[in-house]
Amino acid sequence: MSSLLREIRHTPLLWLLIFVPAVLIAARIVPAAHTLLFVLAVVAIVPLAALLSHATEAISEKTGDAVGGLLNATLGNLTELIIAVTALHAGEYMLVKASIAGAIVTNSLFMLGASFLLGGLRYHVQEYNRAGGRMHSALLLMATIALLAPAAVSELDLARGEVMTQNFSLALAILLIVAYGLSLLFSLKTHKELFASEDRGQAEEAKWPINLAIGTLFVVTVLVALVSEIFVESVQHAAATLGMSPAFVGFIIVALVGAAAEMAVAFSAARKNRLDMSVSIALGSASQIALFVAPVLVLLSYVVGPKPMDLQFWPGAVTMVMIATVTATFVTNSGRSAWFIGALLLFIYAVFAMTLYMVPPGSHGSV
Amino acid sequence: MSSLLREIRHTPLLWLLIFVPAVLIAARIVPAAHTLLFVLAVVAIVPLAALLSHATEAISEKTGDAVGGLLNATLGNLTELIIAVTALHAGEYMLVKASIAGAIVTNSLFMLGASFLLGGLRYHVQEYNRAGGRMHSALLLMATIALLAPAAVSELDLARGEVMTQNFSLALAILLIVAYGLSLLFSLKTHKELFASEDRGQAEEAKWPINLAIGTLFVVTVLVALVSEIFVESVQHAAATLGMSPAFVGFIIVALVGAAAEMAVAFSAARKNRLDMSVSIALGSASQIALFVAPVLVLLSYVVGPKPMDLQFWPGAVTMVMIATVTATFVTNSGRSAWFIGALLLFIYAVFAMTLYMVPPGSHGSV
Amino acid sequence: MSSLLREIRHTPLLWLLIFVPAVLIAARIVPAAHTLLFVLAVVAIVPLAALLSHATEAISEKTGDAVGGLLNATLGNLTELIIAVTALHAGEYMLVKASIAGAIVTNSLFMLGASFLLGGLRYHVQEYNRAGGRMHSALLLMATIALLAPAAVSELDLARGEVMTQNFSLALAILLIVAYGLSLLFSLKTHKELFASEDRGQAEEAKWPINLAIGTLFVVTVLVALVSEIFVESVQHAAATLGMSPAFVGFIIVALVGAAAEMAVAFSAARKNRLDMSVSIALGSASQIALFVAPVLVLLSYVVGPKPMDLQFWPGAVTMVMIATVTATFVTNSGRSAWFIGALLLFIYAVFAMTLYMVPPGSHGSV
Repeated sequence: MSSLLREIRHTPLLWLLIFVPAVLIAARIVPAAHTLLFVLAVVAIVPLAALLSHATEAISEKTGDAVGGLLNATLGNLTELIIAVTALHAGEYMLVKASIAGAIVTNSLFMLGASFLLGGLRYHVQEYNRAGGRMHSALLLMATIALLAPAAVSELDLARGEVMTQNFSLALAILLIVAYGLSLLFSLKTHKELFASEDRGQAEEAKWPINLAIGTLFVVTVLVALVSEIFVESVQHAAATLGMSPAFVGFIIVALVGAAAEMAVAFSAARKNRLDMSVSIALGSASQIALFVAPVLVLLSYVVGPKPMDLQFWPGAVTMVMIATVTATFVTNSGRSAWFIGALLLFIYAVFAMTLYMVPPGSHGSV
Repeated sequence: MSSLLREIRHTPLLWLLIFVPAVLIAARIVPAAHTLLFVLAVVAIVPLAALLSHATEAISEKTGDAVGGLLNATLGNLTELIIAVTALHAGEYMLVKASIAGAIVTNSLFMLGASFLLGGLRYHVQEYNRAGGRMHSALLLMATIALLAPAAVSELDLARGEVMTQNFSLALAILLIVAYGLSLLFSLKTHKELFASEDRGQAEEAKWPINLAIGTLFVVTVLVALVSEIFVESVQHAAATLGMSPAFVGFIIVALVGAAAEMAVAFSAARKNRLDMSVSIALGSASQIALFVAPVLVLLSYVVGPKPMDLQFWPGAVTMVMIATVTATFVTNSGRSAWFIGALLLFIYAVFAMTLYMVPPGSHGSV
Repeated sequence: MSSLLREIRHTPLLWLLIFVPAVLIAARIVPAAHTLLFVLAVVAIVPLAALLSHATEAISEKTGDAVGGLLNATLGNLTELIIAVTALHAGEYMLVKASIAGAIVTNSLFMLGASFLLGGLRYHVQEYNRAGGRMHSALLLMATIALLAPAAVSELDLARGEVMTQNFSLALAILLIVAYGLSLLFSLKTHKELFASEDRGQAEEAKWPINLAIGTLFVVTVLVALVSEIFVESVQHAAATLGMSPAFVGFIIVALVGAAAEMAVAFSAARKNRLDMSVSIALGSASQIALFVAPVLVLLSYVVGPKPMDLQFWPGAVTMVMIATVTATFVTNSGRSAWFIGALLLFIYAVFAMTLYMVPPGSHGSV
């Protein structure tokens, strides 16, 4: 327990934990102050995500290579998953889909771009393991093609019946999870040397005892779920007040909040000239969203949602995700980086955010 | 003749030749058993395609480098061409177009992916001639851009008159054939060293006498034409019975059947760690479809079809072909392969097949 | 002055200057002979563009590296800019947009392709600085993504009000100019060594005195403006007579005319086996159009046009620009070239031109 407290004292990000009780109390006292609750919830999720990711890593370190890698891979996007499940439960399908697409775009443009920019401001040119970057971007590219191909290929007649769309999304979800399993087999077992960056640098940090890590994992998961509920309840009203569409909130806000913890790690690695790690976190997390989080949400929607969710994204989302992953693939292909590459990635992200803010997918987008 | 018999005895694939008389007889006896005829015809075409490709290679070996290469390149997709011409004659334009698009996708995703997977299951990492792979994928990429650009760029008003679409497709077909001629000049004459993989391994096999080869070529061409006619006649009814759309049949079934012989060669090369050859067969065959088979069918449609055929593909086909060639380009760019790359290519192919099966291009697709 | 005359005597291209007075006089005498005026204006602009580019380079050489690079970069597409401003003033928005998109496509397909072909007809295989080509193509790719993303992502409801589209385009224009400033900072200051090709070969040529250069710049700018006005006035009628749509004129004719001077330099460099320079002129000019000319035209439209111009391109233009830049990126990635690569680029350009000529964006395209 003392190591948890020490961790909190030394990590300014974790001071934000104070917002967790704040938002829970505020939700009781002023349940109608949607904008306040929205802002508090967003701020409170950030440190919780950091704790979650720390606990996951501590557990995976104890359990040895194979199981640990599996755990890390499966729980790496736990925050996004919890928020999305809460939104699913509330029937906010547009928010869920926007957060899936947005998480892929945010990871492959914003996280990667900011890593390149922050690293590039300190180092003139940064080189990194080209083979590893290529494997990750190949996986990401194929994952998004598989996720989006049906939406890109077919213009589903809604008149043709939701049942077929449903069945189709279910079959696709199962295919995606199988591919995810194969990708884990490939990256953790048969060809793990291709993905290896020498050390992930956890060595320097104080290790958590396993009990503390498991305890933290459970408690924080519950807290994230509680805060997510407030977030999802308030988001509709708050967004309207702040002039944001549900698509913008899901695509930009939820994606940034959910990935905050990983970003902190990726940015710090970039500042230490270890772009291998930044690239692998950014692209690895993006492909996990496509291959694991998205299909799991489809399967869960049969249990927790008011009706099953399909995987039909609105056309603009398909285009943005494809542009983002192709750009990330192209950029990581050379194994070299300079500040301007990062600036350009951020710039494309800004264009997307601006487009979503000013021209949200309206009533004519298939939700 | 005895070498032909020896060949048949030693090649289990050729035992399927028994289905050739079977389907011809069945078509006489039970002309209304469409599903049976469809299945028999599909199975009968496979060994015929293998014989065709073997005869073509035997002839091209005898005639020396330049003429041989030309022959091999021009007759390499003879089976697809014969089936398509039969369908053209019957006015089945959707089937023809689907089989053109499907052949490109099948070659660049399924044939390439299965080669990578089969090779990767035996060898940890396979390396191959990067320059050759790049030349082939560059040619393929440009060929498909040229083939699809008009469909991607223009949303032709059908109201604007079929005549203009017709003229446009005719002009495009001529341009494509000119480009094909230039590509042969480049790959067989001015820069043939870039495409060379040391030996094509025919040395080991028993050589056919030239007369036998030419005789086989003619006889088998006639047999393929006869079986194709039964196939095209039965396909509509059989597809309806089996729940498949004409788009699915053309895109998946015809493409797989037509390429079966080349696949056997490509897979066996991959198992012998000669991916150069697999890549060159898969991508070379795909670009030949785009640059040669497609425009030739447009020109032939003026002679054999009830009305001229245009080159307007339905939007989903355009997207799938573009995704397939970009993916193949990206994957062959590195000159290395492992089993998972093959699995991912097959996986994207499965997603496409599933999409076509469950969401065929309906009445709203421009046929 | 004598050096200007000597220059003209030794450069056959400049003999076309005789068409400048010819078109100005003809416009007075036969103002209704639109087709004649159109042809004369097109021919007259070519040598003026050559003089403009020569004067710009002479000035930039005198003013030292940083300022000179800036000048060269900003005035490099001055001809295109003047023509576009004249068209803007006349309210010909379709022509302006088509010339922006067309300039990008013409530079990255036609100029690059013809350089590769002309160089390749003399040299078997040409190698060039791969890093430089990659930097240029990365910049171009991101520039066009930023320019086109909104058009690709959003299908703006026109019913939703032009005001929003206007504001959106204005915001995007400002973002693009900021990115352009950063790209200059990167390529001229912080990382200029990545873009360096040893010498740009101006050394051999006779240097112009600075006064002559500045004088030429101003006089020629005025002449281009005068000729452009005649061009824009006559183009509508002439195009109708010659069966060309405004989209075709802007996309192909204006783009070829505006880039004629740069093409002369790029082609001559390719013939001297200095593809570095050809690639950098072609791709550098294309990204400048996207990052500088296009947004400047949006800003200027508030001053000189009858109403503000937005950045919504018609869907076909978006597709062609994306295909052109992706192809150029792919092709320059390897740092090697042969004649067939150039032929294929020209071939794709021809397919686009044919498409635009035969199937212009009709009334259903958003203009």
